[in-house]
Amino acid sequence: MAHQWIYNFNAKNTDGNRSMKNLLGGKGANLAEMSALGLPVPPGFTITTEACLDYQKNNGQISDEIKNQVSASLNRIEDLTGKKFGDSSNPLLFSVRSGARVSMPGMMDTVLNLGLNDETVEGMAKLTGNERFAWDSYRRFIQMYSNVVMDFNSAILEQTLDSLKEARDAKEDTDLTAEDFKELVAAFKRIILEDSGESFPTDPKEQLWRAIAAVFNSWNNPRAMKYREIHHYSHDWGTAVNVQSMVFGNMGDDSATGVCFTRDPSTGDKRFFGEFLINAQGEDVVAGIRTPMPINEESKNDHNAKLKTLKEAMPKAFDELTELYLKLEAHYKDMQDIEFTIEKNKLYILQTRNGKRTGSAAVKIAVDLFKEKILTKEEALVSMDPEDINQLLHPRLDPKVEKNIIANGLPASPGAASGYIVFNSDDAVQKKEEGQKVILVRLETSPEDINGMVSSEGILTARGGMTSHAAVVARGMGKPCVAGCNALLIDSTKKELIVGDKTYKEGDALTIDGTTGEVMDGIVPTISADISEEFKEFMSWADEYRTLKVRTNADNPADSIQAIEFGAEGIGLCRTEHMFFAPERILAVREMIFANTEQERQTALDKLLPFQKEDFAGIFTEMNGKPVNIRLLDPPLHEFMPHTEEEKQELANSVGLELSDIENRASQLQEFNPMLGHRGCRLGVTYPEIYKMQVRAIIEAAVEVSNKGIKVIPEIMIPLISTKEELAILKKDALEVIDTVFKEKGESVAYKIGTMIELPRAAIVAGDIATEAEFFSFGTNDLTQTTFGLSRDDSGKFLPSYVSKGILSRDPFVSIDQRGVGFLVEHACKEGRKTNEKIHLGICGEHGGEPKSIEFCHKVGLDYVSCSPFRVPIARLAAAQAAIREKKA
Amino acid sequence: MAHQWIYNFNAKNTDGNRSMKNLLGGKGANLAEMSALGLPVPPGFTITTEACLDYQKNNGQISDEIKNQVSASLNRIEDLTGKKFGDSSNPLLFSVRSGARVSMPGMMDTVLNLGLNDETVEGMAKLTGNERFAWDSYRRFIQMYSNVVMDFNSAILEQTLDSLKEARDAKEDTDLTAEDFKELVAAFKRIILEDSGESFPTDPKEQLWRAIAAVFNSWNNPRAMKYREIHHYSHDWGTAVNVQSMVFGNMGDDSATGVCFTRDPSTGDKRFFGEFLINAQGEDVVAGIRTPMPINEESKNDHNAKLKTLKEAMPKAFDELTELYLKLEAHYKDMQDIEFTIEKNKLYILQTRNGKRTGSAAVKIAVDLFKEKILTKEEALVSMDPEDINQLLHPRLDPKVEKNIIANGLPASPGAASGYIVFNSDDAVQKKEEGQKVILVRLETSPEDINGMVSSEGILTARGGMTSHAAVVARGMGKPCVAGCNALLIDSTKKELIVGDKTYKEGDALTIDGTTGEVMDGIVPTISADISEEFKEFMSWADEYRTLKVRTNADNPADSIQAIEFGAEGIGLCRTEHMFFAPERILAVREMIFANTEQERQTALDKLLPFQKEDFAGIFTEMNGKPVNIRLLDPPLHEFMPHTEEEKQELANSVGLELSDIENRASQLQEFNPMLGHRGCRLGVTYPEIYKMQVRAIIEAAVEVSNKGIKVIPEIMIPLISTKEELAILKKDALEVIDTVFKEKGESVAYKIGTMIELPRAAIVAGDIATEAEFFSFGTNDLTQTTFGLSRDDSGKFLPSYVSKGILSRDPFVSIDQRGVGFLVEHACKEGRKTNEKIHLGICGEHGGEPKSIEFCHKVGLDYVSCSPFRVPIARLAAAQAAIREKKA
Repeated sequence: MAHQWIYNFNAKNTDGNRSMKNLLGGKGANLAEMSALGLPVPPGFTITTEACLDYQKNNGQISDEIKNQVSASLNRIEDLTGKKFGDSSNPLLFSVRSGARVSMPGMMDTVLNLGLNDETVEGMAKLTGNERFAWDSYRRFIQMYSNVVMDFNSAILEQTLDSLKEARDAKEDTDLTAEDFKELVAAFKRIILEDSGESFPTDPKEQLWRAIAAVFNSWNNPRAMKYREIHHYSHDWGTAVNVQSMVFGNMGDDSATGVCFTRDPSTGDKRFFGEFLINAQGEDVVAGIRTPMPINEESKNDHNAKLKTLKEAMPKAFDELTELYLKLEAHYKDMQDIEFTIEKNKLYILQTRNGKRTGSAAVKIAVDLFKEKILTKEEALVSMDPEDINQLLHPRLDPKVEKNIIANGLPASPGAASGYIVFNSDDAVQKKEEGQKVILVRLETSPEDINGMVSSEGILTARGGMTSHAAVVARGMGKPCVAGCNALLIDSTKKELIVGDKTYKEGDALTIDGTTGEVMDGIVPTISADISEEFKEFMSWADEYRTLKVRTNADNPADSIQAIEFGAEGIGLCRTEHMFFAPERILAVREMIFANTEQERQTALDKLLPFQKEDFAGIFTEMNGKPVNIRLLDPPLHEFMPHTEEEKQELANSVGLELSDIENRASQLQEFNPMLGHRGCRLGVTYPEIYKMQVRAIIEAAVEVSNKGIKVIPEIMIPLISTKEELAILKKDALEVIDTVFKEKGESVAYKIGTMIELPRAAIVAGDIATEAEFFSFGTNDLTQTTFGLSRDDSGKFLPSYVSKGILSRDPFVSIDQRGVGFLVEHACKEGRKTNEKIHLGICGEHGGEPKSIEFCHKVGLDYVSCSPFRVPIARLAAAQAAIREKKA
Repeated sequence: MAHQWIYNFNAKNTDGNRSMKNLLGGKGANLAEMSALGLPVPPGFTITTEACLDYQKNNGQISDEIKNQVSASLNRIEDLTGKKFGDSSNPLLFSVRSGARVSMPGMMDTVLNLGLNDETVEGMAKLTGNERFAWDSYRRFIQMYSNVVMDFNSAILEQTLDSLKEARDAKEDTDLTAEDFKELVAAFKRIILEDSGESFPTDPKEQLWRAIAAVFNSWNNPRAMKYREIHHYSHDWGTAVNVQSMVFGNMGDDSATGVCFTRDPSTGDKRFFGEFLINAQGEDVVAGIRTPMPINEESKNDHNAKLKTLKEAMPKAFDELTELYLKLEAHYKDMQDIEFTIEKNKLYILQTRNGKRTGSAAVKIAVDLFKEKILTKEEALVSMDPEDINQLLHPRLDPKVEKNIIANGLPASPGAASGYIVFNSDDAVQKKEEGQKVILVRLETSPEDINGMVSSEGILTARGGMTSHAAVVARGMGKPCVAGCNALLIDSTKKELIVGDKTYKEGDALTIDGTTGEVMDGIVPTISADISEEFKEFMSWADEYRTLKVRTNADNPADSIQAIEFGAEGIGLCRTEHMFFAPERILAVREMIFANTEQERQTALDKLLPFQKEDFAGIFTEMNGKPVNIRLLDPPLHEFMPHTEEEKQELANSVGLELSDIENRASQLQEFNPMLGHRGCRLGVTYPEIYKMQVRAIIEAAVEVSNKGIKVIPEIMIPLISTKEELAILKKDALEVIDTVFKEKGESVAYKIGTMIELPRAAIVAGDIATEAEFFSFGTNDLTQTTFGLSRDDSGKFLPSYVSKGILSRDPFVSIDQRGVGFLVEHACKEGRKTNEKIHLGICGEHGGEPKSIEFCHKVGLDYVSCSPFRVPIARLAAAQAAIREKKA
């Protein structure tokens, strides 16, 4: 038997199915699937990707065997449709489309109405009773075909059309008549002959062979090759060619075209609805010139309430469509977005796909489909994109209101917010106290902006990426943030923001959408998030399946409460330094920095102790029985230094020094690369009393809260470890303090001491470090910075171009780099478990809230992930999906 | 048979040898070795480390079995010496010393003259004919013993001595009489009894048991334990105790004590020489109160020419010593430093060890010992510490001249230099042109100081570590540098340097010693290095054995010439950016930075092309046939920005912009962490035309030099790669340029394209990268920074304390961190070879010139190391040693 180069799809005989994407391309496989299901798909056939490779091997010749098989399939379609290819009375017309295994821009897209010529156009005219339509289709076919198949410069034919419109004083194409189009067809053919030296092919078979060859050739055009290089797709795949018979929704009042959804994509309600137009083509529904009609009562709205429904106009087709949509939903097990055409009362399905939907609709649909027994729980869980949960938890812009977008930045922390501009944190705090809603606009934020961020509705920065300070902290707070918005020119001294040619001043209104990165003029109303019963049910399923625990990154009781509401099972990262910036504390911190002796430093630390203790007690109380992982001081001391002249003078007075001493000390503390500087456990080693104070605060708080009958599980985390010896020394210090406190209090609590793994060396020697640690928490933000040698604060200048050039497939600060950073994480888990089989493993970098990274964490066997409160539900779902996928694999 | 707790050493019966350090300690093993050799060592015995552990197991009791074995050994010594322990007419006295397997400060050191009491002291007085000496020894013994064995506060006895001196109106101890010492002994014993409640032990056996127990106890005193923790020594080793009979060089004119060297430690000349004193103890030779006498004619100098030699005074002892030194040299196969004592005409050897020597002496001795057939070539090669070569290649301070050291910094680049202070590079250049020798004093240096450094005799900085910019560049230039000298307060605006209470101004004289880190007031004369014939011969042996090639890091023809003289086999790292700072070039570089369009950037680059080409042509010519590895632009662009107002204005004029534009651009280019910023290949990706210009310059120069009949082997190195895709894109760009140049010139040359491996991720994915690279060069400076998350520019604040606390055994920027960074290097070699078996592997970080790191490079199978010109000979020797050690293992 000869090799099969052609796969047919039609009601009687379909050779393929949706699993055959490599051979038939995505489009061909989908057409086969629908046909095999018995859907009324216009019949056609797919020429395989193997045929494409064969064509190339034969130096651009379609073999006779392939041609024979194409002809056989073509005859079969003639039999099925009763139409004839090239026939002047009942012509069969085709669309020809490319289709690779993945959707790939750059290749030839579509030729419609192939088979038209001077004879068949007359048949079309008679069949449709619309001569103008037939000739318009013909001239469009010539334009399209000459351009994409013959590589003819489309501008020349466009000019001819324009000249004719001018001569006829016609504004639009629709002002031209059938005679005009006839004239145009003649002109086009003449021009093509004159300019290219060859006649436009009028033999339908010739049209077909050349169109097929053009699709094959388009596989290797420069744009397609470039695209494959960027996406690491193989040049050896080839493309399939789909040849499908045309159907027309514009063949008269017994024809129509439309779009429908099997459920409401906005709410998820089980409500079949859609729109259609009689005697129209697909584009007309979209174009909005005529008001589309509702397909049923459920589809009626203010605009179309008085129009006829499809049910009323074409009851038979409507009944067929109803039957089909139920079949499609059951088959694809998801809400479908269906394109249909009715040609002379006969219904055709042109396309069906899983419909796009809002986050809340996604949850409702998944839960309903489970209840309708269409999906299992596992299928329902994997059906939802975890990122879509974002929408559910944050306020969003009212979709009904118009927006005036003035700039675009990075969607750094989801949700929408409106308010009045302030340019610094102090102003934010003050205006907030005065009852105003404010948007904090900064070049970039730093830890001392924390209070201003707390007081703002949203944060907008001109610099920084997805993991800049503003982005990370805003996500932690669940506050909308647009970061790295380069178009902003900010002069915070003048309190001015220039965007394009418009200048905004303090107090001017602005709206940001942290989900999209848009910045808008004025106040755009928002609608608030509401957590539905379905959502709670859905998330409870996720909890049944996941094995990864989900903790949260939280630095204060308020965030802790929020996180518990979202299902957090503990705190994975409590950053103690955020607590240092409150006005009554920062001075003591600075006194500590200026201490000349250990004794002076101790005096300053004694002032901080009660504050830290109070913070920890608050968190322990809220987390009642859930573990709380507290990281000891991490940032370099210069982050706490005063910046303004006033603050410097205040500090000078407080520590009894000259202003110049303050400035000298500040310049001494400056670092070339603070990220790689004197921070983390290095501070603990050089100033042991700082960590000792923090450990004392943690343990005193733990004992006191525990005495109130609240269960407390403190975990003390030492950051930036690179050698086992560092941890051993600091652990010994901590144990001494803990012992002392237990003796003082006459009580003890259980606790753990462990370390961040956030430097490549720590990951490499994890086996050593694990002998001193009860847990590892992977700090993948810093681990990504050091593994790549990439400062996240500086990478904004070139990282976007790295992603767009395909050097990196994703921003490694957003989704963990599994090949590089992941290697270190996996190595550390393996080596750590070798020397300490009880070691508890987690992640507290930003990746802990990103679905792909969470799947990776599940795979390497971490015990938990930790993320900002608002990403906890996302992480719970992603963890469940990872567990389900693993079970299936 | 009972377990052997005691190992005797004496002329008739020696149980141990030098291999038994674990059991006998280092000192005990050495005493055994010398005794077994038949040297006249005062007889004694070693109580094993096992006995120490036994003592501890028995809760601080010396077992009877051990006591019995000690008594037996003691009796044997009485027999051998004819003296008796505790005898009042001919008393046997002992020294008791601790001795662990490694030399370990913190333990009990020594008790001398054990066995003295009111009776034996009289015997001593008679034997020595010196009552004063006997009683002085006795009171010293009581002081020493009560302090180290009885833990009695030594200050109390010191006060008693001082009071007596005051009463006697005596300035020195030597002014006291025998009667005075008798009085003191009585007083000491009384005070000890009163204060401690126990009598000073007068029974010699009791003295001995308590001294042995004190040594055992000292193993676990806090200082010793701390020391072991820092050095990762086991607490389970225990210490041995050495009990050795005393001999006295001060028993009259037939007694003497001295020190001799078997060869000249300054020159290495085969010349036996030394000094001695008649009727004296070891301390007297060192103390310098009496002028020591020469042992032979060869030992005479200006001070002692008129004194009697040992040969003349004690010919028999001299002959014995001569015989012995030859024996010792042959046995230890090295120049020996020998301590001897003559007691009543009998020669004793107290100690022999490999003598310290200068670098040039080390080479001469090694070569001579080979010629004398004492050493094989391999033994001669491993006998030398490669670091000692440093001395040979650099000028050093005249050791005869007194130095006034005003501060100490890091010995950042070896050699000594004197000159007049300048505070900036421009002044350095100008003064140099005026014929003045200058020392460049900077807070720290940056790439724009290159010209100033070239013009200076030496560089002194207040900040930065061993791998700071100043240190690295100075070593590259072979110029002395003292870095990170914290004691300096530099005000470069005022042109003032304050050290302690002295202020130095521009033009004041200063001397630095980059070998020791010392900074000295005024001009201290230096003596120049001279390369001997022996050195050349010795290095040629190294070349016979080593398998690692040795290249150099050089950026200009002068350095290339120097490196070839030192034996470099190619250039492993030519940094192109150093070439950018010359005054006529930097403006073009800045114009490039300010270019708004690709076209403007190209225009600026076109100006740079001829300069770069000329540089490369010069280097290719000098390296005639040796490979030259050129790294494309690496530092971030802001390093090239102007700093002074004048420079900024000049640039503004040149590019037709306002001064404020210049300042804006400079602030735009600022980075938070430049080390992790927009540099290396990231510049190549965002500004392809920069790398294209550099590749063109390299290839045009290569073709042109090649056309002159000079063989050229260019290697193009792309820095800071972290993904294969970066390299693929930049390699493609380079290949296009190379093809174009070959076509233009009608000629081609062979070349290689490869990459630095200097980021953890590059090492991890080296298997991918190797498919695009012809070579890897490990940039272990940056790899160390990123693996540890440690900025070398900032680490000076805490890294020294990390080394002193034992967290790191060595500065990882000096010697490669084999456990962490080494893991990545090894992984990259393995993975790289898997996918590209021909890949050529080298190292160009500073570690390429450090012996331990070179041994590591040899082990992991690199093809070459590259280091600064002045370290090339060190690397050649270290590579030979690595090969020899591997062969032996």
